[in-house]
Amino acid sequence: MKKISKKDDYIIIVGCGRLGSHLANLLSVSEKSVVIIDRDEKAFSRLDTNFSGFTIEADAIELEVLRDARIDQADVFVAVTNDDNTNIMIAQTAKRIYKIPKVIARVIEPNKQKIYENLDIVTICPTILSAEEFKKIIN
Amino acid sequence: MKKISKKDDYIIIVGCGRLGSHLANLLSVSEKSVVIIDRDEKAFSRLDTNFSGFTIEADAIELEVLRDARIDQADVFVAVTNDDNTNIMIAQTAKRIYKIPKVIARVIEPNKQKIYENLDIVTICPTILSAEEFKKIIN
Repeated sequence: MKKISKKDDYIIIVGCGRLGSHLANLLSVSEKSVVIIDRDEKAFSRLDTNFSGFTIEADAIELEVLRDARIDQADVFVAVTNDDNTNIMIAQTAKRIYKIPKVIARVIEPNKQKIYENLDIVTICPTILSAEEFKKIIN
Repeated sequence: MKKISKKDDYIIIVGCGRLGSHLANLLSVSEKSVVIIDRDEKAFSRLDTNFSGFTIEADAIELEVLRDARIDQADVFVAVTNDDNTNIMIAQTAKRIYKIPKVIARVIEPNKQKIYENLDIVTICPTILSAEEFKKIIN
């Protein structure tokens, strides 16, 4: 555990599944200040033993939880729960209410990506990304 | 439905989930000859209405199914079921028994990618791919 200094990028990740934990581990190695939130304490077992960030066991759809995570100080907010509607909702909260400069969300259903288009939220759809990668290798 | 001509790349995709169907739709648009196999007929509803390939409702872990799909003529074999062990097994069959030039498999669990390393099978892990994409945007 390290203290968050003003110099570091402060990153909040919601969802500690395969993607959230993998990303948190990557960012932790590159010395970012990371807080990762998940409803299920067991999810944190995916984090590397030398993960240098903080974990919060709570439901991030509650504003109080985001406030406890000091969302007002975050530079980056990442929504990667396994539920598209949750991701859309919390990403909007981060963008509209807390004006987080960089908000990025995972989209599971490729056709839901359109919903984000007008919200100024960057999205990553692993299915689309992977299909394009497969296509590159095939061509 | 179109007839497979010798000039086209002949591509077999196993698994018509989000990724398999999205890839099949992409390849169909770029005029590749595609056969997609899934155990569950309902899975094919993910294909575009103008999907130009063939569908086979069957379990691809049975050699007979792969033979019926004319695996011996395939240029590319893609294993994208929702089960890593199935993907490893059928990808190996395609590579070792049928000597398919290009075999590509999806890996769900990032730590299983190592298993493929010595098998000359190209792998794509959507979690690793997506985490790297998130990291690029954050940096």
